[in-house]
Amino acid sequence: MKEISSDDKLYRIRHSLAHVMAQAILQIRPKASLAFGPPIDNGFYYDFEFDTPLTSDDFADIEKRMRRIIADRQEFTETKLPVSDAIQKLKGTGQQYKVEYAEELVTKGEKELGFYVNGPFEDMCKGPHVKHTGELPPDCFKLDSIAGAYWRGSEKNPQLTRVYAVAYNNRAELEDYLKRRELARQRDHRKLGKELELFTFEDSVGPGLPLWLPNGMILRDEIENLAKEVEFKYGYQRVSTPHVAKEELYLRSGHLPYYKDSMFPPMTLEGEANYYLKAMNCPHHHLIYSHRPRSYRELPLRLAEYGTCYRFEASGTLSGLQRVRCMCMNDAHIYCGKEHLEEEVRSQIEMHLDYYKQFRFEGITLRLSLHDPKNKEKYIDNPDAWKFSEEYLKTILDDSKLPYQIGEGEAAFYGPKIDFQATTLLGKEESIGTVQLDFQGAINFDLKYVGADGEEHRPYIFHRAPLSTHERFLSFLIEHLGGAFPTWLAPIQARIIPVRDDCLEYCNDIVRELRSQLIRAEVDLTDNSFNKKIREAVTHKIPNIVIVGNKEVENSTVTLRRYCMEKQVAMPRVDFIARMHKLCTQRTMDNFADVVVD
Amino acid sequence: MKEISSDDKLYRIRHSLAHVMAQAILQIRPKASLAFGPPIDNGFYYDFEFDTPLTSDDFADIEKRMRRIIADRQEFTETKLPVSDAIQKLKGTGQQYKVEYAEELVTKGEKELGFYVNGPFEDMCKGPHVKHTGELPPDCFKLDSIAGAYWRGSEKNPQLTRVYAVAYNNRAELEDYLKRRELARQRDHRKLGKELELFTFEDSVGPGLPLWLPNGMILRDEIENLAKEVEFKYGYQRVSTPHVAKEELYLRSGHLPYYKDSMFPPMTLEGEANYYLKAMNCPHHHLIYSHRPRSYRELPLRLAEYGTCYRFEASGTLSGLQRVRCMCMNDAHIYCGKEHLEEEVRSQIEMHLDYYKQFRFEGITLRLSLHDPKNKEKYIDNPDAWKFSEEYLKTILDDSKLPYQIGEGEAAFYGPKIDFQATTLLGKEESIGTVQLDFQGAINFDLKYVGADGEEHRPYIFHRAPLSTHERFLSFLIEHLGGAFPTWLAPIQARIIPVRDDCLEYCNDIVRELRSQLIRAEVDLTDNSFNKKIREAVTHKIPNIVIVGNKEVENSTVTLRRYCMEKQVAMPRVDFIARMHKLCTQRTMDNFADVVVD
Repeated sequence: MKEISSDDKLYRIRHSLAHVMAQAILQIRPKASLAFGPPIDNGFYYDFEFDTPLTSDDFADIEKRMRRIIADRQEFTETKLPVSDAIQKLKGTGQQYKVEYAEELVTKGEKELGFYVNGPFEDMCKGPHVKHTGELPPDCFKLDSIAGAYWRGSEKNPQLTRVYAVAYNNRAELEDYLKRRELARQRDHRKLGKELELFTFEDSVGPGLPLWLPNGMILRDEIENLAKEVEFKYGYQRVSTPHVAKEELYLRSGHLPYYKDSMFPPMTLEGEANYYLKAMNCPHHHLIYSHRPRSYRELPLRLAEYGTCYRFEASGTLSGLQRVRCMCMNDAHIYCGKEHLEEEVRSQIEMHLDYYKQFRFEGITLRLSLHDPKNKEKYIDNPDAWKFSEEYLKTILDDSKLPYQIGEGEAAFYGPKIDFQATTLLGKEESIGTVQLDFQGAINFDLKYVGADGEEHRPYIFHRAPLSTHERFLSFLIEHLGGAFPTWLAPIQARIIPVRDDCLEYCNDIVRELRSQLIRAEVDLTDNSFNKKIREAVTHKIPNIVIVGNKEVENSTVTLRRYCMEKQVAMPRVDFIARMHKLCTQRTMDNFADVVVD
Repeated sequence: MKEISSDDKLYRIRHSLAHVMAQAILQIRPKASLAFGPPIDNGFYYDFEFDTPLTSDDFADIEKRMRRIIADRQEFTETKLPVSDAIQKLKGTGQQYKVEYAEELVTKGEKELGFYVNGPFEDMCKGPHVKHTGELPPDCFKLDSIAGAYWRGSEKNPQLTRVYAVAYNNRAELEDYLKRRELARQRDHRKLGKELELFTFEDSVGPGLPLWLPNGMILRDEIENLAKEVEFKYGYQRVSTPHVAKEELYLRSGHLPYYKDSMFPPMTLEGEANYYLKAMNCPHHHLIYSHRPRSYRELPLRLAEYGTCYRFEASGTLSGLQRVRCMCMNDAHIYCGKEHLEEEVRSQIEMHLDYYKQFRFEGITLRLSLHDPKNKEKYIDNPDAWKFSEEYLKTILDDSKLPYQIGEGEAAFYGPKIDFQATTLLGKEESIGTVQLDFQGAINFDLKYVGADGEEHRPYIFHRAPLSTHERFLSFLIEHLGGAFPTWLAPIQARIIPVRDDCLEYCNDIVRELRSQLIRAEVDLTDNSFNKKIREAVTHKIPNIVIVGNKEVENSTVTLRRYCMEKQVAMPRVDFIARMHKLCTQRTMDNFADVVVD
């Protein structure tokens, strides 16, 4: 999502509307004290201290008053006062928060303070604003919610009331945003995760440590199966490494100095060593690389692992599956010579894009993430290696003709990377996959191979994770699909609904046949009415709802209703079984109505 | 392996041979001090303190002298002396270790001590022995090895020289044992694990923490795939849970008091809690069971997880994959009502035996493991529950007509179990699978379900692991198969060997076709001679060695050599591909020469 700058028209609209809202609220709460009222990424808010509380019941009235102020076409005029006059003036209004802030600005060396007046309302403010309130579309905003907020964000300060409003350039944009937000709410993976019984969190296990329920585990297994096949095709070899290692391993890898705060604290085995939970798989893979001498004939050597890593994140920052403390990474490390670099990057970009096409992710963009040479603490000090590897990736990206942006200061500590950026329903940009070029790991672990020339060489290392972690990827996928999974991913792939009890045997027989092909099918055996059975199957977003009545039994057919379509289709039972098999093995995205399934 | 009692003839043979060996050694080292010389499970040893060291070069001479003593038909005669006389007598011989031991026996209340004489040799000893050395078959023993050993096993005492010998009832038994031992050495999973590049251990990760190399990971993946299919068929649902949890979870489960010494030390998250690595999956699964109310309609609920658990084992006890600190369990917990118990146990026994049949494990026996009511520390105190559950399992086993033995004091702390016992190449009995009935977990976790009667009930819980852990199971399987895996398990399933360079395109084409079906095939591209290529493929125990020459290219055929058979067979290429597909999907044990593959 593009950040809105203060030069932007929308910024001026939101900022001006904040003043308009404050004016309107002062009409009904004249004794209110005002704090801050800035634009935010979907509108604006204003913080107040009220003598009589405000509730959302007051919103309609406030909005009406705001529209009246807009109709007034009040002009915004700016004045600047020397700080002492400004503070004097603010003290006269009794607005103690404004006074406090003004005094703070003085200590920071401000010489004069700006004020904006529109109609009877005046506020200390830097602007900018629209010319007059008439420029504000009367239907481009909506009061949204009320929340508590501490003055200056500190618990030690008085609690204020924050009034949020949503605001866009016009009514269409506002409605579009509200629609997307409602969709995002309905698709929130935390909500769907509960409704569809995908995962749960338990206090006695700990925050950020999801327990995957059977339905969620099916998603993980299916995605890992896909990864296994793709990685087999691309010449990867799977490995598995312990979740712990001695301190010395992470000292060697450099993770402990650079990463210690993100790691779980150590376990002290008396007389042996400190052990740490792994926060990444790379050091373990480097040991596998170096467990015996390597020859150029083996390169590129591609080691893949769905390895669970543990990272310590402050409990306040944890959120559903998006930010967790335990993550199962779609990880791999590729060890190669300089001569392989170009082909390897190309093939990795192709692999990433293949995956995203498989899942019908649209609007994936590439970002070349570079280091910040000024940030000596964050990045390894090796200017030549940075120069070479950054330029190398850039050249390959330029040659690929794929559009990409630059992410300054977004590199890993050991090298630059290409990130694959997805956009969430609410327009937020997130990295979903990554290809990282590492010039440091091979030095730290003294990795070598004997080249065709008989000499020892250092390999380059790529880290890559096109499917991110199971946790992040699934949080994204659940929201992308709204929990309506295609047949190959769905926890229940087909539910057979008998119209009458005497169809049951036929239904059971179909399920037996499907299950013998490892297809997750079941008969609805509840006492529910037929209509309720259908509704339940739709609620659980089951991709194939199969209706069987006397006619179907007589003709050896079924009537199929795809989750995403109203239309029902009758087909021979044998065709239905073949269709299910095909949907599973071909991983068809049949949850999209535009996907034709023959 | 049956333990040999002192009543047994073999015990008397071994014990007598120890005296014979001591006599023979004293002939060449007359100043040697004697310590202990007991029978052991494959023969006997004797500990000596030598003035001049003994080496294995002396073995032939000692054996010759032993045979001479045997030919002497020396009679074994016992005398008993009051302790004071006995010690006086021993002091006279200058055998200080014998004196020390005799004095210890006095403090333990012994009133008299026994001595056995045969020929010129006398030893303090309880017997029993053969009547005379002429009863000892002169070809039933073999001096085996020399090792250091501390007097009474303590590092603080002087170091002695232990001379090991192997001894059986007769030459045939001796040779059979030596053959089996040589086979066991060749098949040692630690040796094969290295040669076949299955796994490795690294100092900087830590002892007992295997890193699975690509070839070993293929074994794990294939076995997990098998388990997934079998568990799907048996109505299991897979879950995945974190490797850590807060202390409170293990306090609740009762593991912390009963199991603390076997767990890794805690990680202290300041301001939050102590976290422990999980040593078992049950507590996590119980939380999944109870994360929402359960109805009798859902039972039996079967939750399966290949979950990696961490257990602290003293570093001295670790051995290859057999005893590790990190183990990936083929775990499952079954929650059911009393009415399901019988059918559930039956179906679990069936599932276990199905698996063992799949792998062609022979001689699996059942053991009913009961608690020891006198051991209050080891077992939960609930006599009624023990009585019911032990009798219940016994009745089911009796009804099943399967033979079983009783293992007193072998129960889990929470209930009795049925263990599936396999026998290693050296005749050692080991548990390979287990079905445990747990009456305590549901109480600790307050697990409930609403029955058909509308009332709340407590479920019974089964723990079961037919495939043990990946680590233990593979150590066993590697030795069982001698590293010669069937096609479905083999890291390389087929290697194509071109007879001439101009066959290469045809070979590559076959590999492409196989790999598109996810079959692990490769062409031998080395510069090796044809014969060396064959030898290499045999060394790597590749199940399908495929030879392609001009004739094969012309006729669209291949010549197949199964690893386990000398005979080569020509077949159409298309049949070979179909055969490979069938071997993989049907999981044929084609590494056994008696398995007919059409």
